[in-house]
Amino acid sequence: MITAAVVGGAGYIGGELLRILTGHPEVRLVHTTSERMAGRRVDSTHPNLRGRTDLVFRSASELDRYDVVFLASGHRDTMRSLPGVLDRADVLVDLSGDFRLSDPETYRRHYGVEHTAPELLGTFTPGLPERYRDRLRTADRIGVPGCMATAGVLALAPLADAGLIDGEVAVDARTGSSGSGASAGSENLHAERSGAMRVFAPLGHRHEAEITQETGLAVRMTATGVEAVRGVQVLCRVRFAEGVDERAVRAAYRARYRDERFVRVVAERRGLYRLPEPKILTGSNFCDVGFAVDGAARAGLLVAALDNLVKGGAGNAVQCVNIRFGLPEALGLEFPGLHPS
Amino acid sequence: MITAAVVGGAGYIGGELLRILTGHPEVRLVHTTSERMAGRRVDSTHPNLRGRTDLVFRSASELDRYDVVFLASGHRDTMRSLPGVLDRADVLVDLSGDFRLSDPETYRRHYGVEHTAPELLGTFTPGLPERYRDRLRTADRIGVPGCMATAGVLALAPLADAGLIDGEVAVDARTGSSGSGASAGSENLHAERSGAMRVFAPLGHRHEAEITQETGLAVRMTATGVEAVRGVQVLCRVRFAEGVDERAVRAAYRARYRDERFVRVVAERRGLYRLPEPKILTGSNFCDVGFAVDGAARAGLLVAALDNLVKGGAGNAVQCVNIRFGLPEALGLEFPGLHPS
Amino acid sequence: MITAAVVGGAGYIGGELLRILTGHPEVRLVHTTSERMAGRRVDSTHPNLRGRTDLVFRSASELDRYDVVFLASGHRDTMRSLPGVLDRADVLVDLSGDFRLSDPETYRRHYGVEHTAPELLGTFTPGLPERYRDRLRTADRIGVPGCMATAGVLALAPLADAGLIDGEVAVDARTGSSGSGASAGSENLHAERSGAMRVFAPLGHRHEAEITQETGLAVRMTATGVEAVRGVQVLCRVRFAEGVDERAVRAAYRARYRDERFVRVVAERRGLYRLPEPKILTGSNFCDVGFAVDGAARAGLLVAALDNLVKGGAGNAVQCVNIRFGLPEALGLEFPGLHPS
Amino acid sequence: MITAAVVGGAGYIGGELLRILTGHPEVRLVHTTSERMAGRRVDSTHPNLRGRTDLVFRSASELDRYDVVFLASGHRDTMRSLPGVLDRADVLVDLSGDFRLSDPETYRRHYGVEHTAPELLGTFTPGLPERYRDRLRTADRIGVPGCMATAGVLALAPLADAGLIDGEVAVDARTGSSGSGASAGSENLHAERSGAMRVFAPLGHRHEAEITQETGLAVRMTATGVEAVRGVQVLCRVRFAEGVDERAVRAAYRARYRDERFVRVVAERRGLYRLPEPKILTGSNFCDVGFAVDGAARAGLLVAALDNLVKGGAGNAVQCVNIRFGLPEALGLEFPGLHPS
Repeated sequence: MITAAVVGGAGYIGGELLRILTGHPEVRLVHTTSERMAGRRVDSTHPNLRGRTDLVFRSASELDRYDVVFLASGHRDTMRSLPGVLDRADVLVDLSGDFRLSDPETYRRHYGVEHTAPELLGTFTPGLPERYRDRLRTADRIGVPGCMATAGVLALAPLADAGLIDGEVAVDARTGSSGSGASAGSENLHAERSGAMRVFAPLGHRHEAEITQETGLAVRMTATGVEAVRGVQVLCRVRFAEGVDERAVRAAYRARYRDERFVRVVAERRGLYRLPEPKILTGSNFCDVGFAVDGAARAGLLVAALDNLVKGGAGNAVQCVNIRFGLPEALGLEFPGLHPS
Repeated sequence: MITAAVVGGAGYIGGELLRILTGHPEVRLVHTTSERMAGRRVDSTHPNLRGRTDLVFRSASELDRYDVVFLASGHRDTMRSLPGVLDRADVLVDLSGDFRLSDPETYRRHYGVEHTAPELLGTFTPGLPERYRDRLRTADRIGVPGCMATAGVLALAPLADAGLIDGEVAVDARTGSSGSGASAGSENLHAERSGAMRVFAPLGHRHEAEITQETGLAVRMTATGVEAVRGVQVLCRVRFAEGVDERAVRAAYRARYRDERFVRVVAERRGLYRLPEPKILTGSNFCDVGFAVDGAARAGLLVAALDNLVKGGAGNAVQCVNIRFGLPEALGLEFPGLHPS
Repeated sequence: MITAAVVGGAGYIGGELLRILTGHPEVRLVHTTSERMAGRRVDSTHPNLRGRTDLVFRSASELDRYDVVFLASGHRDTMRSLPGVLDRADVLVDLSGDFRLSDPETYRRHYGVEHTAPELLGTFTPGLPERYRDRLRTADRIGVPGCMATAGVLALAPLADAGLIDGEVAVDARTGSSGSGASAGSENLHAERSGAMRVFAPLGHRHEAEITQETGLAVRMTATGVEAVRGVQVLCRVRFAEGVDERAVRAAYRARYRDERFVRVVAERRGLYRLPEPKILTGSNFCDVGFAVDGAARAGLLVAALDNLVKGGAGNAVQCVNIRFGLPEALGLEFPGLHPS
Repeated sequence: MITAAVVGGAGYIGGELLRILTGHPEVRLVHTTSERMAGRRVDSTHPNLRGRTDLVFRSASELDRYDVVFLASGHRDTMRSLPGVLDRADVLVDLSGDFRLSDPETYRRHYGVEHTAPELLGTFTPGLPERYRDRLRTADRIGVPGCMATAGVLALAPLADAGLIDGEVAVDARTGSSGSGASAGSENLHAERSGAMRVFAPLGHRHEAEITQETGLAVRMTATGVEAVRGVQVLCRVRFAEGVDERAVRAAYRARYRDERFVRVVAERRGLYRLPEPKILTGSNFCDVGFAVDGAARAGLLVAALDNLVKGGAGNAVQCVNIRFGLPEALGLEFPGLHPS
């Protein structure tokens, strides 16, 4: 059994880690921290875990040493606390945005502050199994990408790598409210957020830097909060290189994802769910990827969808850990999502 | 033109008052207060009012004297601030819970604190035109009932007054999130409140005291937050006096509400909206009242629905003011609600 | 491996059976039927199953013989088709309403038609493990109760059996839209059903007969469609026998449910989820049961919540089959639900 | 008083016309048709009109002659029935898509059938007051644009006309479920449509032809159904001509919309509603238009939002009729929308 701890277990990503790890047959979840909730039962915050765990939140200062520590703290906090956690874990998995970008200047531009541990930037293997599986087998520091970045990279990279895309990409991301975390600002009030179509990042979102870093493509990203608790969907408008048609696009995705357990190519001619949609992915670790191609116009729309807390966070992290410890990659991640939901 | 001010204009009931009053042909809205938002434009908080008003929130200390002042502050705050406002208005309309109950002991039991102005209790005419129209014509202090109480009273009173109800009444109230106001606690976070069926008052809600005071019935009330922003629906299970059948029930409602502009009797045999439902009442000043009767079993279900911010608050208040100033009762309250919505 | 077939696999309960069975380690799902969808892939109807099954819907006329056949057809259809299916299965599990009631006259009253196979009524063991576990170990015909009935029985039976309840019970049930099935009438149109509080059964719902049959209590049930896709919540107002207090109620539930894997007693003093709520149960096989007690008034509110398609249908059926075939009771049913969701 | 009839009054656009016209002080609504509902009360279909009208649906064959006839029938039906209605009205206002495009070949491409009355194409004045006010004063045939086209045109035209836009425009449209009308296909089932992010038009939507016809811009449009009943939001990604900055964009909008009652420029630095959002426009006749500009990159995002049944349909139609008959333009259209909602 692998011993594990989750730092920041009272948040939404943290709670999702607790859900997955308490059901994972090869992991023993030993410890989870929350400064605010220290001393209270985990299931008082995450009531879905009633009957599944008797764990109590503790302070991070009580951390012992574990095979793996997941960091589910906020951006900016993590870079400050991480150095103190480094020696608590054989394998460290960070789910914040603080160690995803390799360049401190890019970090500053997108997060608005100086990085406090720039020497650690670039020491994290990107936690994206579909692209870094081999490196993850031996990685001791893993940085899980942002939810929208994961969706964008999984949609764009196979075509970018194959040279099918020409020029700048326009990414339109839609997200549910859980992406804002469990903090209660007025912008997240039910009465204000319900039924919203809130364009909160009209001309650039920090995840675009991750997509560019990963695919080499120039990306311009818009992000909108829509009515949903979980779920991210990204639409990528691309211009194709000359001669690219639907067959070529489908072939590029198939080649890359045929053997991937958690990426499905969804581009169908009929049915209600012809293109990827987060609604049927809630709770699952899938990222569905689809496309529509107008070969004559050299235009395409690539669509990816995932649950921001699972494949866009906690599930992806556990998939990385499964790889790192030589376990079956889908262990603990079998839930397929619901229809209807 | 009647001059008016709204104290507490940054809340949801306050915003609804501003919406109605800025569209009211016989009212000139002169002033609105919010200590927190003082100096900022009203439409920065209530964006639906863009282009309709250039008002700026001010401190309550800047209040002048007006024909009518609406108090849309919170419970407990109002009883403290009200004495200082009494001389600012010819007519005072309170929308908080502080002056609805006439007995200080009942107040203490339901609001958990001693009343700080007990000498003013009982000096307010209940702001329920369907029951107090005549007194409202000359009332200088009006206390608008709670949203669930208004629905419950309008459903129960005609039958109680006619002696058709026998014994205790079980009231099951459902409410949208706007009833909790614009304050951002974690209980109102979109991710927590969305899709909720939260039984927040399992065995008694303070509005039951209002219903009892008004109808003389023993009432036991349960309240649940369901997925909606606006809307209250109450279901009243009653036992009928002997010999009461559907005809008698319908007749009692018709007799009372035939000439009421804002109460509709809705109990139909077919269609999707056979009984009252708040969904089609959003923004309107209607309270729909309906019923189902099992005469043999002497059992009945009475159903009432309204928009908690309109007929359950701001709209009802304006209706009272129209009566008080001799205006057509529906002035400024003509919006009928939407289908679908 | 147990071989299994699902009749009526294109509906919502059917789809949920397919989801659970395709992830069940001891079941081989061999066949599923839909006359309307015959020849089409299962995952074209249930897109959450992409990558999980290549099954194609077939006609019921192609059924072979299996260890277990699940009948997920509609009420009234099932009683007609069931006799022809009897010899296809060692164990038959019916999820329709046709074989839940033992009395043909009660059936007629609640379903509006004569029962066409009255000789089979009473030959089905109720598919409620918490009450019939021993009989289920050898049952060859199992009739899974209705979703609201399951919630109502699990809330009421422990107290009724212990003699704590006195007199008639008022049950107020709330349900999501998936309970109406996958048929597209105008009452289920998104624009009409969204945000609804539709009292579709004001004075009696057919599930009340099941509750009475099971608990011996006189029940009067009201049912309302609220905004949700999945989820049932029932509120039971009870009058307690003399001397019953909160401790007695809690003790009665604990005694009955302490060892139950899928019933949790939820009645807490703080937190956002103090009483059972379906929101956190979506996809799970839990039925949460809670209560509030006013001993002085001999009044109580019992609350139960479940996912109507899982513990209220498909999950419950699989739990029964696990028991019948001597498997661990929770096999294939481990998903705990999500927070937030 | 202007006499009016609504053909197709049982649909969602038709119902919205009935709501507005029954509240319009200068219109007498005489007649409304629905073949399917003939003989039934209007308020049995549109329950928000209870107490506001006693009208009964009639067959179109019973139409008399009126000052104005609104056609709210479906696409394709309208072109067949319109010739028979021409002599029933002094002024004809069509809300279908059949007479919006002037070129029969473009119609065939976007609607998939040959136009049956091509001789009438081009005889309708576009029902867009902000662009055709002068022509509308004397127009006898008015063709109201599509909901997404109205939003797109109002966002793009001021900049296109001023020469600020360079090259192709990518339009991303999001729409609620009422845009699909009141017909009950499985794609509109609540359980399937709830929480959807359904990309139903990935690479081109018929409204793009309208936008191009109106602005001269090359447009590529994607359309997604999101969770909402009412509401359309369009995001237009544009590339600016050299030297265009935020000031130039704001100035172009101000110049065009300063005196428009129903178009508001919304592009703010703070607040929850910084850019246009349909949530606060439900029931109102506003189209809010906003923008974000990255002058250095010559990139911009234009955002427009409206209620698809009001400014995107019925409200716009009534605004046109007010102009045509010399009435105040906002008559009957004063409802400002709600906050929160």
